[in-house]
Amino acid sequence: MPDDERLVQPRTLRGFQDLLPQDFIPRKAVIAVIEGIYEKYGYLPLDTPAVEHLETLLGTGGEETNKELFTLETPEGEPVALRYDLTVGFARLLAQYPDRLKPPFRRYASGPVWRVNKPGPGRFRQFTQLDIDAAGSENVALDAEIIAIMCEILTTLGVERYEVRVNTRRLMDAVLEGCGILEQDRQKHVLRVVDKLAKVGVDNVRLELGPGRIDESGDPIPGVGLTRQVVEKILDFIAVQSDTRAGVVEMLRGVLPPGEAAESALRELEELAEDLNALGLPDRYVKFDPSLARGLDYYTGPVFEGVLTDAAEFGSVMGGGRYNQLVSRFLDQNIPCTGMAVGLDRLTSALTFLGLIPALKTTVQVLVVTMGKVPACETLKLAAELRAAGIRTEAFFGPKMNLKSQLSHADRTQIPVAVLLGEDEVARGQVSVKDLMAGKKERADIADHAAYRQAGRVSQVTVARQAMVETVRKMLEQG
Amino acid sequence: MPDDERLVQPRTLRGFQDLLPQDFIPRKAVIAVIEGIYEKYGYLPLDTPAVEHLETLLGTGGEETNKELFTLETPEGEPVALRYDLTVGFARLLAQYPDRLKPPFRRYASGPVWRVNKPGPGRFRQFTQLDIDAAGSENVALDAEIIAIMCEILTTLGVERYEVRVNTRRLMDAVLEGCGILEQDRQKHVLRVVDKLAKVGVDNVRLELGPGRIDESGDPIPGVGLTRQVVEKILDFIAVQSDTRAGVVEMLRGVLPPGEAAESALRELEELAEDLNALGLPDRYVKFDPSLARGLDYYTGPVFEGVLTDAAEFGSVMGGGRYNQLVSRFLDQNIPCTGMAVGLDRLTSALTFLGLIPALKTTVQVLVVTMGKVPACETLKLAAELRAAGIRTEAFFGPKMNLKSQLSHADRTQIPVAVLLGEDEVARGQVSVKDLMAGKKERADIADHAAYRQAGRVSQVTVARQAMVETVRKMLEQG
Repeated sequence: MPDDERLVQPRTLRGFQDLLPQDFIPRKAVIAVIEGIYEKYGYLPLDTPAVEHLETLLGTGGEETNKELFTLETPEGEPVALRYDLTVGFARLLAQYPDRLKPPFRRYASGPVWRVNKPGPGRFRQFTQLDIDAAGSENVALDAEIIAIMCEILTTLGVERYEVRVNTRRLMDAVLEGCGILEQDRQKHVLRVVDKLAKVGVDNVRLELGPGRIDESGDPIPGVGLTRQVVEKILDFIAVQSDTRAGVVEMLRGVLPPGEAAESALRELEELAEDLNALGLPDRYVKFDPSLARGLDYYTGPVFEGVLTDAAEFGSVMGGGRYNQLVSRFLDQNIPCTGMAVGLDRLTSALTFLGLIPALKTTVQVLVVTMGKVPACETLKLAAELRAAGIRTEAFFGPKMNLKSQLSHADRTQIPVAVLLGEDEVARGQVSVKDLMAGKKERADIADHAAYRQAGRVSQVTVARQAMVETVRKMLEQG
Repeated sequence: MPDDERLVQPRTLRGFQDLLPQDFIPRKAVIAVIEGIYEKYGYLPLDTPAVEHLETLLGTGGEETNKELFTLETPEGEPVALRYDLTVGFARLLAQYPDRLKPPFRRYASGPVWRVNKPGPGRFRQFTQLDIDAAGSENVALDAEIIAIMCEILTTLGVERYEVRVNTRRLMDAVLEGCGILEQDRQKHVLRVVDKLAKVGVDNVRLELGPGRIDESGDPIPGVGLTRQVVEKILDFIAVQSDTRAGVVEMLRGVLPPGEAAESALRELEELAEDLNALGLPDRYVKFDPSLARGLDYYTGPVFEGVLTDAAEFGSVMGGGRYNQLVSRFLDQNIPCTGMAVGLDRLTSALTFLGLIPALKTTVQVLVVTMGKVPACETLKLAAELRAAGIRTEAFFGPKMNLKSQLSHADRTQIPVAVLLGEDEVARGQVSVKDLMAGKKERADIADHAAYRQAGRVSQVTVARQAMVETVRKMLEQG
């Protein structure tokens, strides 16, 4: 067919996703829960552009992030990039509007971010983050509150088993300093290797901290080149575990090198423990885990991430940490910050896997269906009456206007109630109101038919127009 | 200072905007109003990516839009672009998911779109659209409902005087066909010229439809090259005005050429008039305006746009129309569609100008303020109690912890209530609750001081910890 050749193939860009109503309706509900909790903790919404000057973003997240930037050029030839997270934009704002955003300042922000990665299942090049960040205090009470927010989000969404893992970068700093490793690049390399612990296992981490290793594909992975003794010290440190936060603190005293750095890191962790206890967060939900590294370079203190125990294969669904130096990239003054991002795509995938996302295909409550030659303006009037009563109403106008098409549309999209209008009804000032869920339930559970009848539930009634809204309301309440 | 040279200048890209809480809090309220109305009319939310294959977008909106595309390349070298509207993505979806999105289908979508334009006041390169689109029926009842939605949005947002201008492309098509102008490119050129009427005036439109003209800067603007007679016919047509929609239809009968095209276009307009009447939309709010052209190429039938009468300089704040051919770009089958987009940036600018955007700097209800050496964990516990009662609470942790800093933070961000906690209060199981608005109102209206006192409003009370939530609630209600 000649027409076909002129057609543009409709396709979604690789690594990007279309979210149809049955995906997006529950997703919006998840967003509302999270943003509601953010507001309850005093975070205010703001928004920064999707595109930033390249120099604003470059080097903020580390080498990995640099490579993942989606870059483009303005018509004026300026190098710019799509934002890879919402945190760097926040740090820029703090520096750019010192008078309007005086610390302390808490904000939340939601929106898409872009990274050039290798797309795969659940791994997108555009994904949505819901961020909170608090600026202006070094007090770890802010970190503790953020951890409480992580817990409250998961609990509110119905997750029964989860773990928020908490660590502080200062512990590892103390370990490395105690071993005489002071160069920043080397410290970062160690962190990157430790970050792979869950993925590659302790034996491979040992090799990568030392001489390096050959991976499964035969490629060499260069090591950090630490001595055997230092490697074992690091491994002793990250192996520390206990069922309680107090237990971890106690054990750390045994493996940390002596000195002020370790003392002060431990004090921070103890303070955090005290704050987490004050917030009533049980040890089984919030755990201290010295092996937690977190990928981004800009963290300086506590770091945290949340994992759903029964959907651990989705990885961490939220995470963050303290970054006391990022603002000083833009400002000749330091503003300590801490923050956390929910990865909405991973979180909803994990919730779906756990059956915690309700299957909601529509938000429509009533479909207005017509029979015979009812003029469109009568349909519109009727729909307007329902909407004036606050009822979410779709007036059916489709390619085919027969009754079967109309009812099968309601069925397919799971609209619970139909209001039927025929020529007779218009003439008599009546409508028929049909409970579309009733039939389904009847079919699903015939044994209960008598009980159903007794309960007085009717699947279709004809009522005077004035009684329509009331009748629809009752049916929706039964639903 | 050596440090300064290493600083990255914090700056927003030209044509882009940072929305701080005092801008974004009311904006979110406007979005909630609009999306709520969309859902009430049966539109379902969905989301498409910000980035599309270049070929998906090219040529859909016309030459102007092609030039305005923000293009980039994927790492794989595919040419892609940032979406310039939300409509093309919707058309792509309909073609791509024929089984999951069976017409009739109504959706809404909200999000940023990008156009490479010349940035200016209120003119951004990234701006936000809130779209509705309905697929699957040629019935203009759908267009009428969309016009009703435009009116309901403006009324709900408190706009008293506005105009939704309505036209149908088919009228101009009939006029041009009647004059023997059948080439699509020429028809489009005429529309583009007519679209400039409000901007350049009727005399310049006359010249541009005919031989062309020299603009103010001395540049030649080529004309469409129509004969004087044809130009006058077009001008007669677009000059038609009346206080009522019926009046416009009546007058059009006099200026339209005879023939089936004009008859059918008029029938469409009459049907639309009947539907608008059924929806109770007064003539003073919804007007037929034959001069309305709308810029985009893809419209095929009714077009509409909304303008705030008392903020007309902001231009149209919402607009759309019927596009029955766009889907056939992607699919060997046609799906008639109609839709409308709210330009959120323009709308909120216009609402702000009209004083209809409430000055809301915060969503926080209570600030927890500490005096003396109260440990952080006590502050956290107190804040948690308030939040457990659903009260949006910020626990103050700032660079300075003295009382003055804390109260001036509350004052600056307009938090209405403070709960004060000192060492004594902790020891006694008490808190002080302070009405931060009371003082302001007292100062603002001293004459009412007695009345205020009589009403029993107190600016600060010390209560037992168990009475805190109740006391805070009462104060917030008085606010």
